[in-house]
Amino acid sequence: MSSTNSTETTANGVEVKAIGHNPYGANPSDFLSNVSNYQLIESTLREGEQFANAFFTTEKKIEIAKALDDFGVDYIELTSPAASEQSRADCEAICKLGLKAKILTHIRCHMDDARLAVETGVDGVDVVIGTSQFLREYSHGKDMSYITKSAVEVIEFVKSHGIEIRFSSEDSFRSDLVDLLNIYRTVDKIGVNRVGIADTVGCANPRQVYELVRTLKSVVSCDIECHFHNDTGCAIANSYTALEAGARLIDVSVLGIGERNGITSLGGLMARMIAADRDYTMGKYKVNKLRDLENLVASAVEINIPFNNPITGFCAFTHKAGIHAKAILANPSTYEILKPEDFGLTRYIHFANRLTGWNAIKSRVDQLNLHLTDDQVKDVTNKIKKLGDVRALNIDDVDSIIRDYHADVNSPRLGPSEPEAKKAKLQ
Amino acid sequence: MSSTNSTETTANGVEVKAIGHNPYGANPSDFLSNVSNYQLIESTLREGEQFANAFFTTEKKIEIAKALDDFGVDYIELTSPAASEQSRADCEAICKLGLKAKILTHIRCHMDDARLAVETGVDGVDVVIGTSQFLREYSHGKDMSYITKSAVEVIEFVKSHGIEIRFSSEDSFRSDLVDLLNIYRTVDKIGVNRVGIADTVGCANPRQVYELVRTLKSVVSCDIECHFHNDTGCAIANSYTALEAGARLIDVSVLGIGERNGITSLGGLMARMIAADRDYTMGKYKVNKLRDLENLVASAVEINIPFNNPITGFCAFTHKAGIHAKAILANPSTYEILKPEDFGLTRYIHFANRLTGWNAIKSRVDQLNLHLTDDQVKDVTNKIKKLGDVRALNIDDVDSIIRDYHADVNSPRLGPSEPEAKKAKLQ
Repeated sequence: MSSTNSTETTANGVEVKAIGHNPYGANPSDFLSNVSNYQLIESTLREGEQFANAFFTTEKKIEIAKALDDFGVDYIELTSPAASEQSRADCEAICKLGLKAKILTHIRCHMDDARLAVETGVDGVDVVIGTSQFLREYSHGKDMSYITKSAVEVIEFVKSHGIEIRFSSEDSFRSDLVDLLNIYRTVDKIGVNRVGIADTVGCANPRQVYELVRTLKSVVSCDIECHFHNDTGCAIANSYTALEAGARLIDVSVLGIGERNGITSLGGLMARMIAADRDYTMGKYKVNKLRDLENLVASAVEINIPFNNPITGFCAFTHKAGIHAKAILANPSTYEILKPEDFGLTRYIHFANRLTGWNAIKSRVDQLNLHLTDDQVKDVTNKIKKLGDVRALNIDDVDSIIRDYHADVNSPRLGPSEPEAKKAKLQ
Repeated sequence: MSSTNSTETTANGVEVKAIGHNPYGANPSDFLSNVSNYQLIESTLREGEQFANAFFTTEKKIEIAKALDDFGVDYIELTSPAASEQSRADCEAICKLGLKAKILTHIRCHMDDARLAVETGVDGVDVVIGTSQFLREYSHGKDMSYITKSAVEVIEFVKSHGIEIRFSSEDSFRSDLVDLLNIYRTVDKIGVNRVGIADTVGCANPRQVYELVRTLKSVVSCDIECHFHNDTGCAIANSYTALEAGARLIDVSVLGIGERNGITSLGGLMARMIAADRDYTMGKYKVNKLRDLENLVASAVEINIPFNNPITGFCAFTHKAGIHAKAILANPSTYEILKPEDFGLTRYIHFANRLTGWNAIKSRVDQLNLHLTDDQVKDVTNKIKKLGDVRALNIDDVDSIIRDYHADVNSPRLGPSEPEAKKAKLQ
């Protein structure tokens, strides 16, 4: 587990002590926790293809698959070969790339789909079937005994081909708990590699997730995989809480693209997991490639990176209020749990605004290689705040105020300030 | 508490039964829960002003304050009058608007700031001071006894003016638990209206939040307010879990704008709370005004609404995979926990792509007022999927394939299909 008992480097290059153990780390009383032993099933090329804007050509799929593999994801999940002829051909093509990541395809619980899947050369098959009363009534119309029978047939068929098999329910949080536990225990006994829980409508909350995963953990011996939609903004938190309860694998996609508002985003989960276990996460995944990966996918599906995207949003490491700027300059850990340099990014202290403080301005004065006493910096800060009240400022505005002020206090007619300014220059 | 034991209307206008109780509702075993009794402290004009792009003129602040008031937020929090002269004047101006929402201002734990605050005419003052070792060492440099002494002085001064007072720690999750509980108990005994917990670096996780809030609940008798930054994507889930543990008030901003990646977004929390308790949330807040409110603020700070924004993201109610479209057409609750019509929005079944299914195409055939048998729809669906493999499709492409197919099967030379098509027309 990561610890913050290390040193940090401030904006001025000064090493300062980080304080205490990591309060955001895995809870030591969680013996079930896989927070420090998790895996990623990357589904940009399956769930992501269900995103409204997605149309991936074969070439683009291969480019994305290679980038995901380079990033270090454990599994890459692809659209069902039953979806269309090109989907089948693309699945075969990606299997032949010889990537380090294992290749999965995601199918309905049908023998027709399973036969197609095993012929593509995938390393594993993810089977899903709706188990909630909603889906049983309005989607496939099958009862639990039919579902169980189909599941057993498909699982045994896939296993007979010597590749991995996952069985997942769909809309798990609206399924009957006893039905769920029954079918999970049945498929676990047959020997599936993983069972999956899916919050298909995107609305489970963390404590529900913890309870369901922990309960399932007591019933099956195989790994547990979780899939969370983000309709009510809880996908990242639910994923983390599932790991705490003993789930081992989380489904993600780049920028979270998928049906409707999508699922847990790769970048968001990286932010969460670096905060929880920096060593495990950074040791396993090339997080400095995150920005390129997001740009690749954003460009392919013609979307902008959200302004507030975890890690790579344009202002994720921008500090504005004067009170924040002061502390950040002294020790970045005061207001940052993530280090921008881990991602090839930089911190920015926003000083050109009316909320600025004299510590931020002092730092800018230093950057401009000018010399002012603390009282002079406070004085010029007030002038900057006054202009900031009148209109939005840019950096040029602030720099010119500072330079004019500096010229004034260093001109001979300003007797009292001069010796002090001179002295500062000599230090 | 809301229940889904009601009827739902499908895309075709058919009423279908919703199933069972609401599995996403408040947990009946949570006697501490305020999920059905929460309040909003809206901080777009305080936390939001710390967003990198924010510069609000007086007129824009007033426009936003009125829109928030119309939406129904309980409190509106404003930037400290100590930040700048214009900030002070704007605070006074908004207090004079006579809004239904109570007006708060947010200050450092200083008598200078407190004196300015009480003179603006606000209904309450939110006081904050850093209690973590990080902030005590690198920000204000004060020890706990000094912090407590300042807090008591400021609180008693504000109370003597007969207005509300909240005391909050900053960076609460990295503060010493005993220190925290000590100071919260002290200020509770003096008689603050609320104590606040703040995840200032944006990295607490839901189970930590639940534990801390529940513990604090056992120590104080006043209300508990929570403030969560979103650096690791957990702000909405943490807010919800805090309410489960007995917190009563959540700080939000429109689109979550604030320092760095911001805080819990108003819209995201609405999505979460409607799923949990639709009646309470929709009875109290005008959620159909959400989109206008977000557009107002997005335009003021020059950002785009994120593609994946809860509720108002462009694809939040777009369904694409064939298996989803089929069920959604039969009953929207199968794949939607939120109803687009609640927000003045509409559902969209994306049928022009290779993942489409025959149910989605059948629905489109109906919309075009054409008549095909199920077998014919399946046949034309295969043609559409084949073109979808070659390139991205638009609606015109699909419509023209359907129209051509329909013309073909209805031309006299196609004997076998003709009578069936005719029959369909007559029904």
